[in-house]
Parts: sequence; C-alpha cells; structure tokens
Amino acid sequence: MNVWDSPSDWIRFWIFEYNASLPFNLLTNQTLHSIAINKPRAIDGLGKNKKSRLDGSTFGCLVFREKRVTNMIGRKYASLFCQQWPFFLFFTVIFFTVFVLYGILTIPTTTMAPHKLCMIPGPIEFHEDVLAAMGTPATSHVDPNFIPVFGESIEMVRKVVLSEKAQPFIVSGSGTLGWDMMVNLIEAGDEVLVINTGYFGDHFAECLEVYGAKITHLRAPVGGRPSADEIKQAVAGKKYKMVTVTHVDTSTGVLSDIKSVAEIVKANSPETLVVVDGVCSVGSEEIRFDEWNLDVVITGSQKGLGVPPGLSIVIASPHAIETFKSRKTPVPSYYSNWNKWIPIMQAYESRKPAYFATPAVQLIYALHSSLKRITSQPMEATFAKHQQVASNFRKTVQDLGFKLLAHTEEGAANGMTAIWLPEGITIPQVVPSLATKGVQIAGGLHKDCAPKYIRIGHMGISVMEDERGHIQKVIDSFKQTFTELGYLKA
Amino acid sequence: MNVWDSPSDWIRFWIFEYNASLPFNLLTNQTLHSIAINKPRAIDGLGKNKKSRLDGSTFGCLVFREKRVTNMIGRKYASLFCQQWPFFLFFTVIFFTVFVLYGILTIPTTTMAPHKLCMIPGPIEFHEDVLAAMGTPATSHVDPNFIPVFGESIEMVRKVVLSEKAQPFIVSGSGTLGWDMMVNLIEAGDEVLVINTGYFGDHFAECLEVYGAKITHLRAPVGGRPSADEIKQAVAGKKYKMVTVTHVDTSTGVLSDIKSVAEIVKANSPETLVVVDGVCSVGSEEIRFDEWNLDVVITGSQKGLGVPPGLSIVIASPHAIETFKSRKTPVPSYYSNWNKWIPIMQAYESRKPAYFATPAVQLIYALHSSLKRITSQPMEATFAKHQQVASNFRKTVQDLGFKLLAHTEEGAANGMTAIWLPEGITIPQVVPSLATKGVQIAGGLHKDCAPKYIRIGHMGISVMEDERGHIQKVIDSFKQTFTELGYLKA
Repeated sequence: MNVWDSPSDWIRFWIFEYNASLPFNLLTNQTLHSIAINKPRAIDGLGKNKKSRLDGSTFGCLVFREKRVTNMIGRKYASLFCQQWPFFLFFTVIFFTVFVLYGILTIPTTTMAPHKLCMIPGPIEFHEDVLAAMGTPATSHVDPNFIPVFGESIEMVRKVVLSEKAQPFIVSGSGTLGWDMMVNLIEAGDEVLVINTGYFGDHFAECLEVYGAKITHLRAPVGGRPSADEIKQAVAGKKYKMVTVTHVDTSTGVLSDIKSVAEIVKANSPETLVVVDGVCSVGSEEIRFDEWNLDVVITGSQKGLGVPPGLSIVIASPHAIETFKSRKTPVPSYYSNWNKWIPIMQAYESRKPAYFATPAVQLIYALHSSLKRITSQPMEATFAKHQQVASNFRKTVQDLGFKLLAHTEEGAANGMTAIWLPEGITIPQVVPSLATKGVQIAGGLHKDCAPKYIRIGHMGISVMEDERGHIQKVIDSFKQTFTELGYLKA
Repeated sequence: MNVWDSPSDWIRFWIFEYNASLPFNLLTNQTLHSIAINKPRAIDGLGKNKKSRLDGSTFGCLVFREKRVTNMIGRKYASLFCQQWPFFLFFTVIFFTVFVLYGILTIPTTTMAPHKLCMIPGPIEFHEDVLAAMGTPATSHVDPNFIPVFGESIEMVRKVVLSEKAQPFIVSGSGTLGWDMMVNLIEAGDEVLVINTGYFGDHFAECLEVYGAKITHLRAPVGGRPSADEIKQAVAGKKYKMVTVTHVDTSTGVLSDIKSVAEIVKANSPETLVVVDGVCSVGSEEIRFDEWNLDVVITGSQKGLGVPPGLSIVIASPHAIETFKSRKTPVPSYYSNWNKWIPIMQAYESRKPAYFATPAVQLIYALHSSLKRITSQPMEATFAKHQQVASNFRKTVQDLGFKLLAHTEEGAANGMTAIWLPEGITIPQVVPSLATKGVQIAGGLHKDCAPKYIRIGHMGISVMEDERGHIQKVIDSFKQTFTELGYLKA
C-alpha cells in the first residue's frame, strides 16, 4: 500500500522560505528526494505544493509523509498532533519548566546523599527533614526564631517519656555526658546499686565512682538480666542513694524491666533515686516516666530520637531536682552543673533567651524536627510499632537458625538485636560483606565475647516508615551474606 | 506601509489539515480574518496559498504576517528563525533540559535558606559547603569513610594554630567545655593567675575554682588590658601553676597580647602553664602555638572556625600533657578526662576507630569542610585579612563619630568590635532595627555596662570572601539605623 493512499497517517511538514534564489518551482522531485535521504528516517514518498508568491519572496510547503502503522485512535491524535504540534511543543516546554521549577523549589534543602544504610544500634538513619534542619543557616542562639524551637524541644522531650512535670536538660555533648550529670545527685560516699546488663553498666558505674559513689553491682550473665527476686534481695534492708539500670544495654541488646525495677526500689525506699540509662531506649522502648516513678532518664540524640549525635538529653523528676537542691556539698563540676543549666532550660521553655554556653543551634533545630514527627502520633503507636518490627525481626533471624544474646523474648530490646555468629564465622567475614551490600551493622562490644556476635539496630524511621524498606533490606543482605558464607542454603 | 511589501519581516505560519470537510478553496478571506481576530496579536494581513490536493485530503498553508520593525540583522536572523524555528525550539528544549539537570546535579545539597546575616561575635555565617556537610546522612562513628575525616580534622586543627606537636581534642560540647577540661591540669590548691579583660575571664576563673584553683585576678578597666609591666609585676616572685588569658574577650572586644604574656610568664617560670581562651580568636587572630610557647588554646567550633556550635576544641602542648600525666591526684571528672580522650584522638589520627563517647559525626564533617577551606591558604593570609577588614571597620565606625570599647588599636580584636552607643540611644532601638534590615548584631554583655554598647562580629567567610558583601551590608544597615534614629545625617 502506498502511504499516499492512507491520508490519516502521520505527516511531517518541512517549511522553507526561498528568497527567489532558488525558485520554488525549480525544486524537482529529485532534489526533494535528495533532501529526504539525508534525513535519518525512511521517507516513503513526498510531494510539494505549488509555489505561492505572496510577495517578493517565494514560499512553499514541502510535505513529507512517513509510513506509520497506527490504529484509528492513534491516527486521530496523530492527525491532531500533526496540525497543532508547535502548540503541543510550546505547552510541553511550559509544563516542563513549571514542573522542574516546582521540583527545585520543593525538594528538601538537603536531599539525602546515597550512603550505606546505618543499621547499627545508633547513630540511626535520619529523616530528610532532620538533615535539612542540620543545615539551618547561621542563627544566633538568642534569635527570636530559635528561642521557641529550643523551648518546644524541651516540652516535646517531656512528651516522649510521657511526663508532665519532669525537668529536661538538652545540652551540647554526647550521651556519655548524661552519666556525668549524675555528679549533681551523687555526693562522696553515696551508695549506688548498678543493675548491670553489660558494657554500659560497667562504664556508668566507673563514671559514678569518679564522683565518689560506692558501687554495688548486680550482674547477670551475658544476655540475661537480674530477676525481680534478685533485685528485691539486693535492695532489701539497704537504703541506696541511687539505683541505676541500663534500659537497653547496647552491648548485649538486653532490655531491662525498668517499671518493675522502679516498683521494687521505691517499695523498699521511696527516697532512692531510680536512674535509667535510656541512651538506647528513649524513642524506641516504652517509658512512662511519671507513672513508673522514675527519677532520671539519660539519653543522647542519635538513637531513638533520630537526630545526629551531639546532644546529651537528661530528664529529671521533681524528686531528683529536690535531692540535687538539698545536697550538702557543692557540685564538683562546672560544665555538668545543673545550677548552670536549670535557669537556661527554664528560660528557653518560657520563651526567653539565656546564656551559659552556646547551645548547638543546628542540632536543636534537627531535634525539634524529629520530635515533631515522633510526637505527631501517640507514643503508644511508636512503642507498639517498635515491638512489632523487633519481634518479627527476631523471629526471622531465629527461623534462619541464629541464636540471640538476649535469653528471653521479654528481655530482648525492641530497638536493636544482638545475634551470635555461627561457629567458625567471624565479624570480618560478616560486617564488611553487609557493607558491600549497602548495610552497615556493628560487631560485638561486650568484653567477654565481642568477636562472637553482631549487633543490628532497628529504631526510628527505619521502623516507623515501612515504605523505606530498611528492615527488609537488612534481612535480604543478612541472608545473602550468610548464604555466601555457606551457612544458609541458597 | 503594508507589511506585504516588506518580505523579510517575521512571518507566522499556521498549518491546517482539512479532511475535505471544509474544502480549502472554500476558506474565504472573511473566514481567515475571523480566525485572525481571535488571536491575541494584531494581524496586519493574511493570505492563503492555493489548495494542494496531494491525496485524499486537502492541505493548505495559511500565511499570517505580523508587522514588526526589525533592523537588517534582525531581519536576517528573523528570516532564518522563521524558516527553522521548530529546530530552534527543539534545541532550546534540549539545552534547557541539560542546563536544568546540570543545575540540579551540581547545586550544593544544602542551599542556604534566606536568613538574617548572623554578624554577632559567634555563631558566625557558615559556608554552604559546611552546611551541606551538616546534612551528611547517617554515618557510623567507626565507618571507614568517617575515620579519615576525623583524623584529618585533628591534623588541621594543629595547622590553624601553627603547631607541629600539640595534641588537639575535638569533643562534643560547647566552647565552655574547654574551660572544664582544665580540670586535667588543675589540682586542688593550685595557684592560677587570670589575666582578666571581661566577662569570660570572670567565668573561666569561676570554672577553675570549682576544681580547687586559687585564683588571682589581674584586671583592667572595661576596654583595656593589663600592661606588660603589670603582668611582669603580677608574676614576679610567684610560681603560678597556670596563667590564663582571654585572647579576645567577647564581652568587650579587647585583644590580649598573648605572645607577650607567654614571654613574660615563661621568663619568670617556664613550668607555668600558659592557657589561652581562644574561643573568639582561633581562626581570626594570629596564634603561633609552638613559636610563642603556649600550653593550651581552648576554642569552640562556631566562631573563627566557621562551623555550627557543638564542638569543644582544645589544643594542648607536650608540656601540658606531661603536667597532666604527672598529676598527683586523679582527675575529678569523667566526661572531661583526658585519660579518656587522648586514646580516642590518637586512634583517629592514626586512622583507627575507637570509642569512649559517640562523636558528633555531622559536626565533624562540617569542621573538616571548614578547616579544608581555612588551611587551603597560609594562615598568615587569614590573619592579615581579618586585621585589614577589622581595621577598616573600626575606622569607618569611628569616622561616623562612634567610640569603641577597646582603648587602643592594637588592643582591639580583629574578629569583632564592641561599640559604645551614643548618649540616649538604647540597644532595643538599635539591634531590632538592624535585624529588620537583615543583619543580626548583639547587645552588650559586660556586667558593668551591658545596656550601653553593641557588639558586631567580623570573622570567617564574612571577612575572607569579599564577594559576599557581608561587611558592607553591616555598614550600610548600621548607617541607616543611626540615620533613622537621628544620630547620623542622611
């Protein structure tokens, strides 16, 4: 079939203006064919319309037809397009421009660079908005825009631990600085019971000893936690100034039952301070500060709170503040001294500036962004989601034949999991292999068995936002690595 | 003149395909005119070429001419454009697309949001690259990518103070934490001379007293600094454990001559530690750590180093480290204890990970970015530029009739200036007025006269990168404010 018999096929128009130098009627079919064969696409036929001398110059339409197989609807639109294509092109450019400009104006100021998923038990993955807040341009720490950001952050910290009346401290420093702040509550010779479930119990105790505390450790084997009876026995008949408990020991992934600890301790001696190391639990584990009668919760920004490291966050009960105020000796620290920090926190919370040390403005903007997201739904939803994801994760890993450090399901953390490596497989075989698959996990940390296990974090947006697929990526890479190592079958 | 007589004027072609429903030769001039008047632009004339029956359908070119006044060159290109405009449009779209994609791919991940210029004496304005580094996605503190970033930052800190052998500490915390770290050098009862030029001398002394230091203040009137003779007299015949000097007291803008202080102190007693509070001087004032025989320089990230607040940076001489190691009593601090931090700094500098507290990964990426820029040229260039800009700034302000707190030119800081307000003008009249003009400056801070003066910072990129026009903007807004207040003539 000759295309000229198929009038609705697509048509290409080429329009030339000839200024009489090559009179249009001298364009032979041969010339037209020689133009046509220089085009990249086959031309089935071509024609020219008669020259049209409208004025001093000569115009003409050269009509090239291309053979196309189109259905009837296609033909209709092809025909429309053929008539109107400059308009289509024009509007395409306009729409494209608007689309691109809209895109540019609405992308977060920080788009997240490609990187390994950070699935260690902190620092965790950060939301794009949090990273954008990190890039807040220079802002004075007493700027009217910053003051409410700091003030609201203090209020939201309280909400995260379900407290109405605790005093939060948000201070430049790492989570470790939170331990140091216990210098405000300890006086030389004070007796402290440390409920010790790993590395962080040991080091918290070491910190308290620097400030004169006399430490009694209540230890459990690796992966276990002291039972309620053991705790009852430990506190019975003795009035400790303070009992500390690591809510989740990041070295073992063991979860302590802080509600029960507080109950037992307060039943024995209501004045004893219950201090929770919540560095690896605030934002991922259930904490009911007021209801459970806790006195201090210590945390850092980089775990369940989903903010880059650099902020020490401590929450103190009215009882803790009273204990601090009624101490007999001066606080033997300058930077950690609550006498310096309480007026700052109170000032910002009442939307006034104050100065002791320049706050980490950008980190506080980031904290504000993350806390807004966390507190946008009831904390119960966050607790439940972490429990559900952690429970599934543990089941998946155990179904593959792995054993966990945590001895029991209820004694296993919901924000991280520590997993024994199978006999004969070492950390340098596993961690770098997952890294090449785009997933960063951590090796062991407990001094007795560090080379024998790995630790995987599951907190924050990686847990709360399924659509990111972080947990699945961890599981897939984990399976792949152990398949490559011959431990799992392909 | 009828456009049809002007053949090279721009021409618009409208091309229609008629499927015989409206035979082309039935298109009257009237119909064409009625099409023309529905177009937004005036059509001077129009014509049609004769119908051309190439196949079953009817084609035609309707040629509309628009009147344009074009010069000859314009006509030539107009004519070319007229012939080839679909190609021009096509390539325009291609170029536009490439341009936009290139733009998207090369914009810094953080573009700086519009904000008031932060011209207080710290935090200062941050470079776009530094803010982008703040948005670094989640990265483990032991990630192979992060370790050299931390290691190089430690090395570059040394370069900024022109030292070969000092031990830098980069720790999560505010500049104030640097004072706290002097707990490593002070033992109860140690005698310390504080060369005091303002608020920060008072508070540094307060910090040292917490750790048992016995303080002797050598004060100067507001805006002055103790003379060399006064310092000689103060140290004569007394062996201080430590002499502290605030290099630039941010409360007064007074610059101390730390070279001369160190000379005098070491001549009297080489063992005495010379400790420089360089929070408001490192990166903006000349410091020759080794050559001037300094023992400690304390700073924060948010001033001359051009990084958001949140890092405490301390640089200690081998003599300071020896003094620390030979102390008789244990360091009475946990978080500030150099026994904890020295192994961390040494590990990262030798490109190995280590753990005491989670470092502020993103802030250290930002520090690395800023230090790269600062150390990309000799420090002498940075010192000279700050001196030149500060000197010009002081002259401009003084020429306008203002008086500075600093009594002398050589005793005035190069990174900030404190300016007395004219009689009857108050801070609430001045600072908010400059803020509405997009410039944030600070009020006074010295307890004796805080309401009577203002402070303006000139450090970092605002000084080093003229093309940003920051200093000029400050001067313009400053003049405008005082003109509005009636102090300056319009």
